[in-house]
Amino acid sequence: MHRIYYSYDDFRNDLNVLTKKIDKDFDAILAIARGGLSMAHMLGEYYNIRKVYAINTIGYEDTQKLQSVTVFNIPDLQDAKSVLIVDDIVDSGDTLIEALKILKEAYPQTNFYTASLFYKKSAKIAPNWYVKEAKTWIDFFWCTDLGD
Amino acid sequence: MHRIYYSYDDFRNDLNVLTKKIDKDFDAILAIARGGLSMAHMLGEYYNIRKVYAINTIGYEDTQKLQSVTVFNIPDLQDAKSVLIVDDIVDSGDTLIEALKILKEAYPQTNFYTASLFYKKSAKIAPNWYVKEAKTWIDFFWCTDLGD
Repeated sequence: MHRIYYSYDDFRNDLNVLTKKIDKDFDAILAIARGGLSMAHMLGEYYNIRKVYAINTIGYEDTQKLQSVTVFNIPDLQDAKSVLIVDDIVDSGDTLIEALKILKEAYPQTNFYTASLFYKKSAKIAPNWYVKEAKTWIDFFWCTDLGD
Repeated sequence: MHRIYYSYDDFRNDLNVLTKKIDKDFDAILAIARGGLSMAHMLGEYYNIRKVYAINTIGYEDTQKLQSVTVFNIPDLQDAKSVLIVDDIVDSGDTLIEALKILKEAYPQTNFYTASLFYKKSAKIAPNWYVKEAKTWIDFFWCTDLGD
């Protein structure tokens, strides 16, 4: 399969594009770990938001090729009116759908928005904002840059 | 005050130094947000550890110039035998001391190790591993690279 290397410079440029697209206010940022962690870090600094949180997910093959996702380590969002959920890529969309479901159940009064760097058109859900369509395998710099 | 710019390349190089210093095993990585988030992301990928978590801290000036730190959003570490806590810099040491206190109280059976990129010699606690001594103000790339 064709693959592209996604460098830190690509990441920085795309985050600058993303921040120009995001046209809603939010008072907390929630990374889907691991993929959204670096993104949440940079955006938290950029927007001067100290409430930068993370949630964890485990995806596993269920019976009949159904993909199940479990979401855990939900942060305390009691004081957050509006939360930006970030992930590197919305692929099948299963992770984002499950995260939104759990978060909206836990915090029905909170607005949740979603942003990603990449989005696959075949995903079951689209983020509110994304930068690029994913058409191939992406080697993100955080996966490949360490080591000799 | 003299200040240095700490680029992504500096970060990547220093993480490669850090991974050569770390000589203990761990099965989870815990970022102190926001400073440790990018570090935890890259190390999680490097060590192939999916259990990458974050905690939050608020520091505030108490009476008499005492610095108080509150730690919150403690992840579920029940299944973790050994956890690497990461932060960008150990400055006064107050954050790390309070985080270790809370975490050891909550998980007395778990081993906690600590790593940072920078360490100030005047800090009240030293991390188990660090890369560089902090002698000046550091403009980390995640604080400065976004925007025009």
